[in-house]
Amino acid sequence: MFFLTRRERFSSAHRMFNPEWNDDENLRIFGKCSNPNWHGHDYVLYVTIKGNINKETGMVLNMNQLKEIIREKIIEKVDHRNLNLEVDFMKGLNATTENLVKAIWDELEEPVRTIGAELYCVKIEETENNSVEYYGKKD
Amino acid sequence: MFFLTRRERFSSAHRMFNPEWNDDENLRIFGKCSNPNWHGHDYVLYVTIKGNINKETGMVLNMNQLKEIIREKIIEKVDHRNLNLEVDFMKGLNATTENLVKAIWDELEEPVRTIGAELYCVKIEETENNSVEYYGKKD
Amino acid sequence: MFFLTRRERFSSAHRMFNPEWNDDENLRIFGKCSNPNWHGHDYVLYVTIKGNINKETGMVLNMNQLKEIIREKIIEKVDHRNLNLEVDFMKGLNATTENLVKAIWDELEEPVRTIGAELYCVKIEETENNSVEYYGKKD
Amino acid sequence: MFFLTRRERFSSAHRMFNPEWNDDENLRIFGKCSNPNWHGHDYVLYVTIKGNINKETGMVLNMNQLKEIIREKIIEKVDHRNLNLEVDFMKGLNATTENLVKAIWDELEEPVRTIGAELYCVKIEETENNSVEYYGKKD
Amino acid sequence: MFFLTRRERFSSAHRMFNPEWNDDENLRIFGKCSNPNWHGHDYVLYVTIKGNINKETGMVLNMNQLKEIIREKIIEKVDHRNLNLEVDFMKGLNATTENLVKAIWDELEEPVRTIGAELYCVKIEETENNSVEYYGKKD
Amino acid sequence: MFFLTRRERFSSAHRMFNPEWNDDENLRIFGKCSNPNWHGHDYVLYVTIKGNINKETGMVLNMNQLKEIIREKIIEKVDHRNLNLEVDFMKGLNATTENLVKAIWDELEEPVRTIGAELYCVKIEETENNSVEYYGKKD
Repeated sequence: MFFLTRRERFSSAHRMFNPEWNDDENLRIFGKCSNPNWHGHDYVLYVTIKGNINKETGMVLNMNQLKEIIREKIIEKVDHRNLNLEVDFMKGLNATTENLVKAIWDELEEPVRTIGAELYCVKIEETENNSVEYYGKKD
Repeated sequence: MFFLTRRERFSSAHRMFNPEWNDDENLRIFGKCSNPNWHGHDYVLYVTIKGNINKETGMVLNMNQLKEIIREKIIEKVDHRNLNLEVDFMKGLNATTENLVKAIWDELEEPVRTIGAELYCVKIEETENNSVEYYGKKD
Repeated sequence: MFFLTRRERFSSAHRMFNPEWNDDENLRIFGKCSNPNWHGHDYVLYVTIKGNINKETGMVLNMNQLKEIIREKIIEKVDHRNLNLEVDFMKGLNATTENLVKAIWDELEEPVRTIGAELYCVKIEETENNSVEYYGKKD
Repeated sequence: MFFLTRRERFSSAHRMFNPEWNDDENLRIFGKCSNPNWHGHDYVLYVTIKGNINKETGMVLNMNQLKEIIREKIIEKVDHRNLNLEVDFMKGLNATTENLVKAIWDELEEPVRTIGAELYCVKIEETENNSVEYYGKKD
Repeated sequence: MFFLTRRERFSSAHRMFNPEWNDDENLRIFGKCSNPNWHGHDYVLYVTIKGNINKETGMVLNMNQLKEIIREKIIEKVDHRNLNLEVDFMKGLNATTENLVKAIWDELEEPVRTIGAELYCVKIEETENNSVEYYGKKD
Repeated sequence: MFFLTRRERFSSAHRMFNPEWNDDENLRIFGKCSNPNWHGHDYVLYVTIKGNINKETGMVLNMNQLKEIIREKIIEKVDHRNLNLEVDFMKGLNATTENLVKAIWDELEEPVRTIGAELYCVKIEETENNSVEYYGKKD
């Protein structure tokens, strides 16, 4: 069993915000991360899949296939976008990194299966000091 | 003559936007960087000062002094903020990296002088692939 | 289940040294790492916790809480310190990276529990080429 | 149980190539990665071993022992070499990163045992965006 | 005056080789870097241009224009290629990093002028430890 | 004219300390950096030389020559050492990064000349946030 990781980047605006609370309550819980005028990050995304080697190609899969799935399903929707307002798969969710890795997992799980692999981990570095990993429901 | 560089980081929202143009014109010139719902970056800021060694301390200056000036004059104003809407020294300016390095230069030039050094360069990495440097009017 | 990682740094002096051996024996086993006049590193510390999402906040916990625990319990005690001589939780231990990750684990396990999460991994990069990870007794 | 990781680097030429196919077929499957005149990478290799602390030394093992094994068994054979033509342990294998991590695992498993540790993971970053990990047959 | 830097990457095979010398002589001078079966690198290219701000756009130029020039003139010709055999602008040149930065400078100087800027520096990192910069004939 | 940069690393202990002051005075001026029990860093050293291409080799010089000079003159003397107590070229100097880059410049200037190049810059990163550059007396 092999684990392949593809790294992609995207630059987005977001804020921590629970729509059931007012701005004061959001600021109390989320601090400056809830700034109503937004802030943003150069997010770094790591997608890890697992699979067996194809004897003929010597590869689990062609990394370009994985790259294209990530770009089509994720990067085109989030890069230079507002994660709270403009991303279909984040609708109704607070734009935390936890919710983001889980939503990206849900977007990628099926497409990764169609190229003969299994999604293993989605990791996002929000800043160089903070990151979140998600391994699906099984963990 | 010695050159000391302090690195700091901040996470902000921005958009490329010339208020004299309408949204269509802005989108035509700036593309996705002009998204009306904003996007953002983990900006990396490098401030370089030049100066002579103080014989008694063996230093040009205490890096903590430089760090505190940068944090007070810049980071506290831009981190988790919207560069177009909320930063006093960016008022009326298109929030490009060029305008940002020049505005930060203008904010830091005098305070750096008060701690006995000379501002030499302000550099910002907007993403890991794009950066801008400014050396003041003299270059 | 989500895994959140916080990265912190500290700069310390240390030496490899078993007090039951004399200097010659220590130098024979540990080489230049046992230099009696010390050497030091810019250690990079990664603390990973695991936990479930809080539905209301969309987070496992506020990263600032984790940051503050790490800074209070670890960084304030080791940064700009001598790991062999000045750190209470390293008393009587040889200042190897293995002993250091385990000691940091022991310091953080309970405080992390008090903020509703579970400590999962402590990793230290001693140099860009050498690192050690510890996952607690369970592994 | 502790996990120690050593990072090494090597610069090699390679091409994706299945000798049972002709050049056209190879180009169809592998694209530019199958360029008959080769291309190359600055590969980054991470070797992780697991083991218990030796009470007397406070270490699992001396990292220099691990470094020397990796340099003797791997780096000297692959650095500034052609992975398809010149590396004994890649004979008959397509020079993919998957085959490379598995071949390196097979070269290191026994030598790592002789220094009292257990090989846990071999990871290679082919570029900053693409990497492969292998944990042995057990996974 | 502002300095803008764009970072791009390419993976190529090469060898140090003076065609006026035989293989033994080349190996004596260039060592393992002259391996007849090639080796390769993940080269990192930094292109710096200088220019004045356009008052209307707040930019010196659109970084995408610079990116596209670099990709068309350089990356498409060198990425996944053999620098000695396949790159038109390296014909007849020993594939050293010095010759490479100068050749890339010569390829980019005129196209950069057509987008209203001036080429200032071409820098290449061959490995994380070795790099070369070239500022044109003027220096 | 070409500029070649070699990167090397070393791990040392040091403290900020003016021997003409007592410990209290040193602590007042240098803070935790003056801790009498030392602290340390993984220093990153960048040595830049300038020179013309040798037409026959296509290189300014062989990077291995530069590497060996740096290792013999600097790294062997500072790595796993105490910069205040054990380094001949730091004798009588406060172990600040400013004094260190200047002392390394003085050690390297002549040896670099003997291999046909000119020393251009010595840069040291003490931490990922603090660095100092020195260009010799001429600047």
